[in-house]
Amino acid sequence: MTRMQQQLALVLELDRLKSVLRRTRVKSAQGRAENSAEHSWHVAMMALLMEEHANQPVDIGRVLKMLLMHDMVEIDAGDTFVYDSVASAQQEEKELAAAERLFAILPQEQGEELFALWREFEAAQSADAQFAKALDRLIPMLLNYHNQGQSWLEHGVTRQQALTVNRRIDDGSHALWDYAQQMIEHATQQGWLKA
Amino acid sequence: MTRMQQQLALVLELDRLKSVLRRTRVKSAQGRAENSAEHSWHVAMMALLMEEHANQPVDIGRVLKMLLMHDMVEIDAGDTFVYDSVASAQQEEKELAAAERLFAILPQEQGEELFALWREFEAAQSADAQFAKALDRLIPMLLNYHNQGQSWLEHGVTRQQALTVNRRIDDGSHALWDYAQQMIEHATQQGWLKA
Repeated sequence: MTRMQQQLALVLELDRLKSVLRRTRVKSAQGRAENSAEHSWHVAMMALLMEEHANQPVDIGRVLKMLLMHDMVEIDAGDTFVYDSVASAQQEEKELAAAERLFAILPQEQGEELFALWREFEAAQSADAQFAKALDRLIPMLLNYHNQGQSWLEHGVTRQQALTVNRRIDDGSHALWDYAQQMIEHATQQGWLKA
Repeated sequence: MTRMQQQLALVLELDRLKSVLRRTRVKSAQGRAENSAEHSWHVAMMALLMEEHANQPVDIGRVLKMLLMHDMVEIDAGDTFVYDSVASAQQEEKELAAAERLFAILPQEQGEELFALWREFEAAQSADAQFAKALDRLIPMLLNYHNQGQSWLEHGVTRQQALTVNRRIDDGSHALWDYAQQMIEHATQQGWLKA
């Protein structure tokens, strides 16, 4: 296969991310479940719009690449609800196997370079990765908050869980973590999160 | 409103792009219509993977931003089938009005900067815009080809229409236009495009 054919093979494989469903519901689409492809677009748009709130200067091109790719492993591994800690522990291994399979579809050096970028996101140590991770945690909270806490209520999530799971937003953006805490407190007052 | 509140207001508004439906169908999801949000993710992923096929060197960060934003105007204007030339002519005015409304949600100088980038994509004159446009034309062909020509058959599209509408892929990537022409010829042989 030519390089182009290898790349197009991955483009076609990625189509399947459109059928991986998340816990968030889409308000404008009669409350159907959001899929991981449209989530990936939405969180990348959020990075494009909110770069200035990163704690440290970021390379927005790298942040966008990380966010576009971050969930592609769910094609094999499926989506895990962030508040399900048992499933989350098993998920890591499944996602790593998926990444190995998917990046191997590409020309070798390109696959290795993008796999390294995906691992950098997962490790959440660099400024780019910490900002990208912060947005990936914030956007479901934001959508859920504006859906009257729908997925928190459906899954009985507590204020303490929301604070614990999302506090790493602070590593990427103090400003967005301040905002997130205000949402958590207001959602608790409304009864959308258990006190 | 603070800058952050203005930006978050647009992030929330963008959620509506998940309910704008296109003519392409999603194979992995029982053939439901693709929406413009997941399309935007898919074409941005294609840019990330296929940058090397651009005719001229591109700034991939700018290309990704253009592709992430290019369809957001459909929140107001809806999607138009690329082979419907009457609707396409009216679409331009509706999309411009939508862009004015949406970018005005942002802090002024940020809205103006991103509006300029959106117009650069629409004008298709710069190397970044020509490559982004080429991918936006190629990806529905690619998906449709691998769906046995479904939307071409549903809408009675001819080989000549496919060649005319898509020839501007060549402005962004000679290599991808060569590939696209091979798909068009094979699709015609298969009867998916009218001869």
